[in-house]
Amino acid sequence: MANVVVQNPARAAMATVDALAGYGVATVHEAQGRTGLLKPRITPIWAGAHIAGTAVTVSVPPADNWMLHVAVEQCREGDVLVVAPTTRSDAGYFGELLATAVAARGVRGLVIDAGCRDIAELTQMGFPVWARCVCATGTVKETLGSVNVPLVCAGQLVHPGDVVVADDDGVVVVPRREADAVLVASTAREEKEEASRQRYRNGELSLDVQGMREPLARKGLHYVDHPESNGAGVQQTAGEAAR
Amino acid sequence: MANVVVQNPARAAMATVDALAGYGVATVHEAQGRTGLLKPRITPIWAGAHIAGTAVTVSVPPADNWMLHVAVEQCREGDVLVVAPTTRSDAGYFGELLATAVAARGVRGLVIDAGCRDIAELTQMGFPVWARCVCATGTVKETLGSVNVPLVCAGQLVHPGDVVVADDDGVVVVPRREADAVLVASTAREEKEEASRQRYRNGELSLDVQGMREPLARKGLHYVDHPESNGAGVQQTAGEAAR
Amino acid sequence: MANVVVQNPARAAMATVDALAGYGVATVHEAQGRTGLLKPRITPIWAGAHIAGTAVTVSVPPADNWMLHVAVEQCREGDVLVVAPTTRSDAGYFGELLATAVAARGVRGLVIDAGCRDIAELTQMGFPVWARCVCATGTVKETLGSVNVPLVCAGQLVHPGDVVVADDDGVVVVPRREADAVLVASTAREEKEEASRQRYRNGELSLDVQGMREPLARKGLHYVDHPESNGAGVQQTAGEAAR
Amino acid sequence: MANVVVQNPARAAMATVDALAGYGVATVHEAQGRTGLLKPRITPIWAGAHIAGTAVTVSVPPADNWMLHVAVEQCREGDVLVVAPTTRSDAGYFGELLATAVAARGVRGLVIDAGCRDIAELTQMGFPVWARCVCATGTVKETLGSVNVPLVCAGQLVHPGDVVVADDDGVVVVPRREADAVLVASTAREEKEEASRQRYRNGELSLDVQGMREPLARKGLHYVDHPESNGAGVQQTAGEAAR
Amino acid sequence: MANVVVQNPARAAMATVDALAGYGVATVHEAQGRTGLLKPRITPIWAGAHIAGTAVTVSVPPADNWMLHVAVEQCREGDVLVVAPTTRSDAGYFGELLATAVAARGVRGLVIDAGCRDIAELTQMGFPVWARCVCATGTVKETLGSVNVPLVCAGQLVHPGDVVVADDDGVVVVPRREADAVLVASTAREEKEEASRQRYRNGELSLDVQGMREPLARKGLHYVDHPESNGAGVQQTAGEAAR
Amino acid sequence: MANVVVQNPARAAMATVDALAGYGVATVHEAQGRTGLLKPRITPIWAGAHIAGTAVTVSVPPADNWMLHVAVEQCREGDVLVVAPTTRSDAGYFGELLATAVAARGVRGLVIDAGCRDIAELTQMGFPVWARCVCATGTVKETLGSVNVPLVCAGQLVHPGDVVVADDDGVVVVPRREADAVLVASTAREEKEEASRQRYRNGELSLDVQGMREPLARKGLHYVDHPESNGAGVQQTAGEAAR
Repeated sequence: MANVVVQNPARAAMATVDALAGYGVATVHEAQGRTGLLKPRITPIWAGAHIAGTAVTVSVPPADNWMLHVAVEQCREGDVLVVAPTTRSDAGYFGELLATAVAARGVRGLVIDAGCRDIAELTQMGFPVWARCVCATGTVKETLGSVNVPLVCAGQLVHPGDVVVADDDGVVVVPRREADAVLVASTAREEKEEASRQRYRNGELSLDVQGMREPLARKGLHYVDHPESNGAGVQQTAGEAAR
Repeated sequence: MANVVVQNPARAAMATVDALAGYGVATVHEAQGRTGLLKPRITPIWAGAHIAGTAVTVSVPPADNWMLHVAVEQCREGDVLVVAPTTRSDAGYFGELLATAVAARGVRGLVIDAGCRDIAELTQMGFPVWARCVCATGTVKETLGSVNVPLVCAGQLVHPGDVVVADDDGVVVVPRREADAVLVASTAREEKEEASRQRYRNGELSLDVQGMREPLARKGLHYVDHPESNGAGVQQTAGEAAR
Repeated sequence: MANVVVQNPARAAMATVDALAGYGVATVHEAQGRTGLLKPRITPIWAGAHIAGTAVTVSVPPADNWMLHVAVEQCREGDVLVVAPTTRSDAGYFGELLATAVAARGVRGLVIDAGCRDIAELTQMGFPVWARCVCATGTVKETLGSVNVPLVCAGQLVHPGDVVVADDDGVVVVPRREADAVLVASTAREEKEEASRQRYRNGELSLDVQGMREPLARKGLHYVDHPESNGAGVQQTAGEAAR
Repeated sequence: MANVVVQNPARAAMATVDALAGYGVATVHEAQGRTGLLKPRITPIWAGAHIAGTAVTVSVPPADNWMLHVAVEQCREGDVLVVAPTTRSDAGYFGELLATAVAARGVRGLVIDAGCRDIAELTQMGFPVWARCVCATGTVKETLGSVNVPLVCAGQLVHPGDVVVADDDGVVVVPRREADAVLVASTAREEKEEASRQRYRNGELSLDVQGMREPLARKGLHYVDHPESNGAGVQQTAGEAAR
Repeated sequence: MANVVVQNPARAAMATVDALAGYGVATVHEAQGRTGLLKPRITPIWAGAHIAGTAVTVSVPPADNWMLHVAVEQCREGDVLVVAPTTRSDAGYFGELLATAVAARGVRGLVIDAGCRDIAELTQMGFPVWARCVCATGTVKETLGSVNVPLVCAGQLVHPGDVVVADDDGVVVVPRREADAVLVASTAREEKEEASRQRYRNGELSLDVQGMREPLARKGLHYVDHPESNGAGVQQTAGEAAR
Repeated sequence: MANVVVQNPARAAMATVDALAGYGVATVHEAQGRTGLLKPRITPIWAGAHIAGTAVTVSVPPADNWMLHVAVEQCREGDVLVVAPTTRSDAGYFGELLATAVAARGVRGLVIDAGCRDIAELTQMGFPVWARCVCATGTVKETLGSVNVPLVCAGQLVHPGDVVVADDDGVVVVPRREADAVLVASTAREEKEEASRQRYRNGELSLDVQGMREPLARKGLHYVDHPESNGAGVQQTAGEAAR
């Protein structure tokens, strides 16, 4: 169904969303089985932002940002705009005026597989944007698109109301119905990592902490001394090296 | 006419140039009818610079920066170097020594559709550069080019003496003879945007401020409630939604 | 020889390595005859880092970081990890846990022709990374590779124990046996550049300082006045212009 | 649900599929409202192939083609393999041995957002492939993926059993349940185009055939004679020009 | 001046144009001083076409091909359409219907810094196209552009009436007023190359034919025997090797 | 050692080279442990060529083909030119005149990580080239490079005298001393593949031929029927499915 604005989609619970904001993109991506990452071409326009919010999706024609103006009205406190053009476009769909409008409604950021402009002003406002590129090219307001339909943004399927987590590593999408489970898994993963972190800081090796020596040897990893080193140069298997 | 240095080209009036520096690249680009933008591959090497100046153009062979040394002598207070290789080159044509030389003559920055090096030093000097890439590769001094001829830089035609405005959004060129008119248009645009900005900040919508609801409905935009929302789900046209 | 860990390769002398850290990548690259630069796609994940260290090389399968865990054990104080996948991979091989592990062993940084993640954490730790891209994609631990074998990283041949110098301009490799000579040449180049820098700062031109006017004229460079300038418009050779 | 092989998905009716093969990718894409196109990076490895078939989808890890071997068993007469890696990979997942295996089961072609190899042999066999790149790099068989799950391939959501149409223009996906409607629309579009084709061949203009002159004039299009032409140079609107 | 159709621009003489068609793109490019080449991203959609014609230029908005329909009316026998979008667009602006229309007016081909579709049909028609990419994405007809204004296409400035030469190597533009001189220079170059060709075919070396040995030696080229060869291994200069 | 021509390097035995020409690039790459492939950006300029030869390596400055003229003299019957610029260059280093010269000496083809021109003529001559791009841009003859030194071409280390195998899949390098062993391994691999090919052609599955079912099940692969299929929908492991 083309040229439609879907109103009031169910959104992930804000408590879950806010809790997910406490974890990085890499952690959330791992916690949900290594899924949901947008392509790495989507990068932050300024460093240090870290947000989670509920997706308001916007499907836009190339170089036409009319539907972004339509989408503003659909936004609520805690939302994140997720914008994908129907075909590749580097045009600058979004700048500080639109940012002012959506910030006034409590929108937490923008993810766009296209261009963004007014970088200096957006940085000064502290409005976070993840974009394909920075490009000042203007857009027209001639052709319709849709708001709050499922769409593919930077290679990832996003439904309205899904959770979007974004930081300096990029952007990950968590399906609305899986948000609670992913939060639990993220917490568990972070706790496990904290334990490893302490051991690594003390000089322990992941080879030992994670028991890798035996499987490495079984796969056939060999250790030799460099011909110019002082060592004996005897070839060992990973297992022997571990002893 | 190849291998030529054109001396003393007419330049845009410095008062106009300095006034244009008060507007962002996106504003100036819009104000002159959405023309003049260089391709978005040209990005600043450090964030926060914002300049306007008069173009000294330099056409250079691939990986050969001899003509940059020739160009230094042609530079005056208020100029910006605009450099384009005759075929794609990522080599590092420009570093802090050349920056020292041109800064001593009052040059305000460099725009180059090729590589730049000594990024840390240039950042420390506060010398602004917009480049295709950062690359330390050295260049030779074997083949001639030209200075102050019209050239295409990153997809845009630039004449010597044109105004170059550059900020975190990229680079826009304003033809010398149009600089005054573009300044007037930039000022007008900025004033109009300031009015919108205030209304958006107060929560008004561009749908209303700019009267978009009626044309959207005429194009066929429909509003529906999400099946999982609490709304009534009755399909409306944009016009009905606006009531 | 595949699937091998070469232990204790000879490394460049740490005194030389530390002295090379005093020179920028561009200087070292020039000082060794314009060789050794990695492709400019390898960029720092945060600005301002500047290191030199001895290479521990790691050849990894695409999207598999098992060998990085193996490599940690081979690292010593002053080393830099140099990682190249056997075929293009943008996956996130390295994050803050591995950084914690190698930092505990005195490793100074990472150079990787693939993806890196946990950018915010690595920035906060001050652990320097030069990577092909930022990408949170997870990797597996299924397939072997090798440690401390010669490999091609971003177009450059690197042997274990070579010196790696990296700053905001990128990464350059200095062969272990040439490190002393390159240090001498870097020092000489820097001294020469410092002399030029002073003269440029005082407004002298490289055309004069480096005696370029005569060879430019011989190659056929001509000077003309712009038709719209106030000059006489007489065409001159570079030699005449110099008089 | 990860690591799963979904057996016997419902497929579009073969009569519809075969009829759709009579229309080009551009026509089908237009007929279904300009949706369904894969990114243009997916190109045919040899010119002139034109197929339609039912999708067997395969989600694969980077540089690991194990699941392709699993997928062969799921293929039937009339299918097309649609393969997407979970993260970018240029490795050569598919060659003439796998082509021999799937051709023996009546598979009509392969669409893969990754690399393919044995180009000469595949061309000689007449087995059609649309791929991201040609790359001989080998893959491993270590990590699981899934078969016949919905996936995003080259930016497009594909469900098992959907219709895939591919020719020299690229690849378009038609959702299974919409295949009959898209066939009707494709036929209608082709008939309309045939009528235009005849008129254009006779020298009529689309400006007249499609009644464009009036809307062009209303938008503000002006006609002027070139200063160096023999015409009068009077500026006209599009409407006046049409008279 | 935006949104304008310039009628009846002066065109290069058809006799000159037809004669230039007898020379390859590389030859014409060299003959006019190594200028005029479009970026190598512009490639032929089928191999073996070789044309020359007079440019009808079309400046188009992204993903909007309305102005192509306007441009058809401006075309004459011997013209070549040269199309550039105002910002990057990969959409499919041109297909076999438009090709039918322009072929009926004697247009010889299309050069477009954007996408083209209906490749199979265009190949069958023998209508030559040089494009940035093949892409079936449809375009809209909403926004104006201009016809027969100077524009930058793939990095090259093109005026209406200029000569466009295109073959498997790409596309070169010859300014209208320089066409006769470039034809003379192309003929001279080709004659000189034919002489060299005969000598090379007979086994003579360009080192001798073009007298390169002495300048190579002066620049410092040295010859040594490989340590594993049977030669004496004495280092020679290029001059000594020539003796 | 810069600016050197190494004469008479030891070359792989021509009998071995000619025998390797009987195997495809993918086979040879696999046979030598999945090493030696050049990056997939190196593609043939015309389809169907398949060669093997001994490498004459040429390190060239960007956009300067002087050393190619020097290299001609070093070529013998059975050689292949392998050319790498010291920094990225898309210029057209090689055309039909140089092809005529090297073909007269028995050179079998060119591999170049840069541009090539005169595509139509090279195709007509049947001279095979694998290049980074097609580009007519001319080169200069100003700066030295080296011939027959080890170099990195498209990410792969190549020594003079190594075997180069190239076909429609790309290019693979076999170290001279390993050529005989790789030939043996290639022959063995091809025989094994021929056996599989026959079985696949008869409808057997690699799941059975290569005994994959059990390891797949052990890794956790599950089979389920599609909810819309006619099957029972009971979830099975790969092992159960195999029974």
